[in-house]
Amino acid sequence: MTLTRPALSLACLIFALGVLPAAGAPHTAKVHAPAPKPRTMQEILDASSASDWRHLDPGNTLYLDLAEGHRVVIELAPRYAPAHVANIRTLAHEHYWDGLTVNRSQDNFVVQWGDAEEDAAKRKSIGTAKAKLPAEFEMRTKAALPGWSRLKDSDGWAPQVGFVDGFPAARDPRHGTSWITHCYGVIGAGRDAAPDSSNGTELYIVTGQSPRQLDRNITVVGRVVQGMEWLSTIPRGTGALGFFEKPEQRVPMRAIRLAADVPVAERENLEVLRTDTPLFDELVEARRNRRDDWYKAPAGHIDICNVPLPVRTAK
Amino acid sequence: MTLTRPALSLACLIFALGVLPAAGAPHTAKVHAPAPKPRTMQEILDASSASDWRHLDPGNTLYLDLAEGHRVVIELAPRYAPAHVANIRTLAHEHYWDGLTVNRSQDNFVVQWGDAEEDAAKRKSIGTAKAKLPAEFEMRTKAALPGWSRLKDSDGWAPQVGFVDGFPAARDPRHGTSWITHCYGVIGAGRDAAPDSSNGTELYIVTGQSPRQLDRNITVVGRVVQGMEWLSTIPRGTGALGFFEKPEQRVPMRAIRLAADVPVAERENLEVLRTDTPLFDELVEARRNRRDDWYKAPAGHIDICNVPLPVRTAK
Repeated sequence: MTLTRPALSLACLIFALGVLPAAGAPHTAKVHAPAPKPRTMQEILDASSASDWRHLDPGNTLYLDLAEGHRVVIELAPRYAPAHVANIRTLAHEHYWDGLTVNRSQDNFVVQWGDAEEDAAKRKSIGTAKAKLPAEFEMRTKAALPGWSRLKDSDGWAPQVGFVDGFPAARDPRHGTSWITHCYGVIGAGRDAAPDSSNGTELYIVTGQSPRQLDRNITVVGRVVQGMEWLSTIPRGTGALGFFEKPEQRVPMRAIRLAADVPVAERENLEVLRTDTPLFDELVEARRNRRDDWYKAPAGHIDICNVPLPVRTAK
Repeated sequence: MTLTRPALSLACLIFALGVLPAAGAPHTAKVHAPAPKPRTMQEILDASSASDWRHLDPGNTLYLDLAEGHRVVIELAPRYAPAHVANIRTLAHEHYWDGLTVNRSQDNFVVQWGDAEEDAAKRKSIGTAKAKLPAEFEMRTKAALPGWSRLKDSDGWAPQVGFVDGFPAARDPRHGTSWITHCYGVIGAGRDAAPDSSNGTELYIVTGQSPRQLDRNITVVGRVVQGMEWLSTIPRGTGALGFFEKPEQRVPMRAIRLAADVPVAERENLEVLRTDTPLFDELVEARRNRRDDWYKAPAGHIDICNVPLPVRTAK
């Protein structure tokens, strides 16, 4: 069942765009000038210590196992959406999603799963999960936001952006609020017109250009840390909003489980890079201004949704 | 061969995120307040006139026909990359890409095609196309940039952003330069370390979060106007940088043709929305501040890569 491929996970973060096969050439750390050349992301990761990484908490980790055998690993965000995360834990624990389907794949936007049954009376029971939850669009923050690691870069959508608990986030100090930003791989709870009409049964994941207009309009519950490619390549639905028009086009899910509910031997042993360390700051700077030989004009800027969040199999 | 589906093209631009099946409910234009409610994007498009649209120029339009029968329609950008576009026209005219393959699919980054042969001596002849071209990373502009339609929104990567000839673009008035921005669907010419090492044979297309760090580091040659979903869902390569590890994983292309080289009966009859009209400005504002009932907090901002560029089949 394990689909962990640390080599790929790291390779996916290397963004060079060369002509094949030269693109695969490793970066060599040549030092010509008196001042040492800044380290590349790979060099920074290679030099990281155990304390730069954190284990995923099994109580906050979901495994979405597609029927065809691929696993997507999701980290939940209880700090931002405690009621939704609690409900999602209950739904997973009671096997709510088992046998349900991915029902929507809209190009450059989202993939969405849940109960495809249109007749509310025939929908699957949500068991002991709550049918009604409060909207958790943003979090009230105190003067200190624990773990807040701010980017110095400007952002058009929010007064401040940075990271909290490994999640890309925004902050509005004047209003004392913070929220997770809709970046690639972020997961939210679909809702109807009413702000409090989501209960976590219907989840969507961002598969395109960051739709930041959704920020503070919907409850974000987590993000994918591994296996994103199994969702992002699902053929697009041809109905309105990318919903599949035929039932057989839906993609079945074998199960969604909380890692804590899975035997240890069947869990992924993953670590993600901490976002509140000097090493992470160095990594962001290495991506803000690319210094490898391929780049001719370092950007001097990075968008919150362009910052890589490395993951690896624990040793 | 025609794969034009205008209903889908417009549906794809509607970004509501409701619970199925309510998500498909049409937006109703309720007017409660004395001031008329701003029009939604759909209402704006429904009210557009013929002069708000332009036909794609067959001399600047490529058809990438995948072997499995799907067509991707690409608009070239001769204003920004005249030498590369001229070479691409020659390569298409002489059937250079026919039978070659998509060789790379890297999640949240790019899909890339060209000659997969690693031995340079065995690679396909480029015919009368030029082996060497100048780098065309940015364009020198005069005080007036024809067709420039500037967004009022801030951008972290460039002094100004907007649209030229229907392409998302940036501008640096101080240095008198302009360039196409790396948004979803934008196509560039892969290169090695040398700035002038691209000749247009090896092309990549952005399939993930806008990699704006590539701006002014590589030559952009055009963008996809229809059929993006056939490239964005190609299974990801498991080799370094998303290259396919096995030859059979590569995705074969039947042909890439300039529309002008294709019989009229086999052409797509497409129009794209002009970006230099008051109607387009109204559409951008409708997306900058969503006013339909679903949105509770209009963003007050839009990113250059979030602006939809509608396409339709001409009547």
